[in-house]
Amino acid sequence: MTRIFIQEVAVRDGFQIEPRFIPSEEKIALIDALSTTGLAKIEATAFVSPKAVPNLRDAEQVMRGIRRVPGVIYSALVPNARGAERAIACGADELNLVMSASETHNRKNVNRSTAKSLEGFQDVMRVVAGTRVTINGTVSTAFGCPFEGAVAPERVLKFAERYLELGFHGITLADTTGMAHPLQVEALTAAAVARFPGAELTLHFHNTRGMGLANVLAAIKSGARRFDASLGGLGGCPFAPGATGNICTEDLVHMLQAMDYDTGVDLDGLLRIARKLPSIVGHEVPGQVAKAGKITDLHSEETPS
Amino acid sequence: MTRIFIQEVAVRDGFQIEPRFIPSEEKIALIDALSTTGLAKIEATAFVSPKAVPNLRDAEQVMRGIRRVPGVIYSALVPNARGAERAIACGADELNLVMSASETHNRKNVNRSTAKSLEGFQDVMRVVAGTRVTINGTVSTAFGCPFEGAVAPERVLKFAERYLELGFHGITLADTTGMAHPLQVEALTAAAVARFPGAELTLHFHNTRGMGLANVLAAIKSGARRFDASLGGLGGCPFAPGATGNICTEDLVHMLQAMDYDTGVDLDGLLRIARKLPSIVGHEVPGQVAKAGKITDLHSEETPS
Repeated sequence: MTRIFIQEVAVRDGFQIEPRFIPSEEKIALIDALSTTGLAKIEATAFVSPKAVPNLRDAEQVMRGIRRVPGVIYSALVPNARGAERAIACGADELNLVMSASETHNRKNVNRSTAKSLEGFQDVMRVVAGTRVTINGTVSTAFGCPFEGAVAPERVLKFAERYLELGFHGITLADTTGMAHPLQVEALTAAAVARFPGAELTLHFHNTRGMGLANVLAAIKSGARRFDASLGGLGGCPFAPGATGNICTEDLVHMLQAMDYDTGVDLDGLLRIARKLPSIVGHEVPGQVAKAGKITDLHSEETPS
Repeated sequence: MTRIFIQEVAVRDGFQIEPRFIPSEEKIALIDALSTTGLAKIEATAFVSPKAVPNLRDAEQVMRGIRRVPGVIYSALVPNARGAERAIACGADELNLVMSASETHNRKNVNRSTAKSLEGFQDVMRVVAGTRVTINGTVSTAFGCPFEGAVAPERVLKFAERYLELGFHGITLADTTGMAHPLQVEALTAAAVARFPGAELTLHFHNTRGMGLANVLAAIKSGARRFDASLGGLGGCPFAPGATGNICTEDLVHMLQAMDYDTGVDLDGLLRIARKLPSIVGHEVPGQVAKAGKITDLHSEETPS
């Protein structure tokens, strides 16, 4: 059985765009529940400006309040050295640094050039020096930019290479706005696997145009083994109102389990948590399996047809 | 470029379960619009009992009222010889006969055993004898039954074989309640392609658990070239409230086009029609690309991020 590692991002990537603030205790309870399901990594919060992302203004409380389960990596997004200091002070295992492959998207997302982003990452590396904290670098818009369109694969790979030169442990190729299609995923993943055999490679897909799970299978075919996903399919893209967001963790685990992959995840436990999510966020979520049930859930014949 | 044929089922498979009756003129206008987009086949209605499916009680008006576009096959679902007579009288090009591979599902769906269903199909063959009308036979629950669970592939293939012995032109393997996963699809499709090289083979998927488009790619890998899909992803399963229904035509065409398949379909035209669908049915629909736009639709830099 091929082992696939599932990394949960709902609490950061999903909650950051929720219209209402999720109380810190609810975030902590959710992370604690998720910690027991066999997920490999949980991106717990972001140490960013409370003005930029008010929903994650409780990063310290959350990171300090969770009950750590051995074996689970608790990561946090940080934008700069100051964020790294805060995250490390709260005991984050890993820092996630994000830069877009597209200049336009990077400028709009973090208000600087990619060259300036890379400079800032060097400052972060100085902060983590001597600690056991690992660094993951995300290349956003790796499969296309909503402003610039196509992004050259070589540009994406060059940034990933630069990450490794800086001493990063992992690389995430992120389809930030759901523009990837399976042929493209197959090609870029194969190139990354061949070029960075020693790096921990993660693929981060969105289901914005319905291709999310198909893209996962294309990436697995090319050697990827780690995927970000979001409970309930929370998250999304400000440019696509009504469109779905990140690929849904429980739908992903359900598919992979049906296909005999070993995710290490307790699907029933995950589904129980996923079914509480609408009441936490106050609205329906895109995940399908929590509504439809697993393919192995049978109906009694008395169910009305 | 590999040619993939897209067959639209929203007007039958989708509309039949809509809570409100869609006026005949709206059905006709929708079919007429769809006819110009390059779809290979349109399942226009069902000649069934108006009591059983009140929403399709206008089968005659619809089938007689549409403007035929040469090259498009207009099919109709019929349950028996009487339905076949009605459909032929209105000029249907093809009749779709449906039976479940699962005894339990067949009994619940059409209230008879599979043996009785096959007997009834012989009556239909007598009605079409001497006409130019072709017959497509659907094997429902081909990838699993919501009551019985797993369905043996050999059982599905036996029914398909029986269809061809009866003189059917085409076979549809239908994942009626969205239980198929890509590995299973790859295997059953490969077996069907190998065993029935002369038959027109269609795969009919639902996106109930998010695997719809991944299943299409698995089927293409095994040689399938024809797919049913539903505008907006209309349709669904009575056992999964809130779950999505058939795979979405415009999302399917969008993915296949991005992957350089030749669907023959005008995606922009299809999207224009899909965007009117919520106002026809009076509610939101699951399709993603109509909301998010195509991957090639770029945003101006002035769009708020």
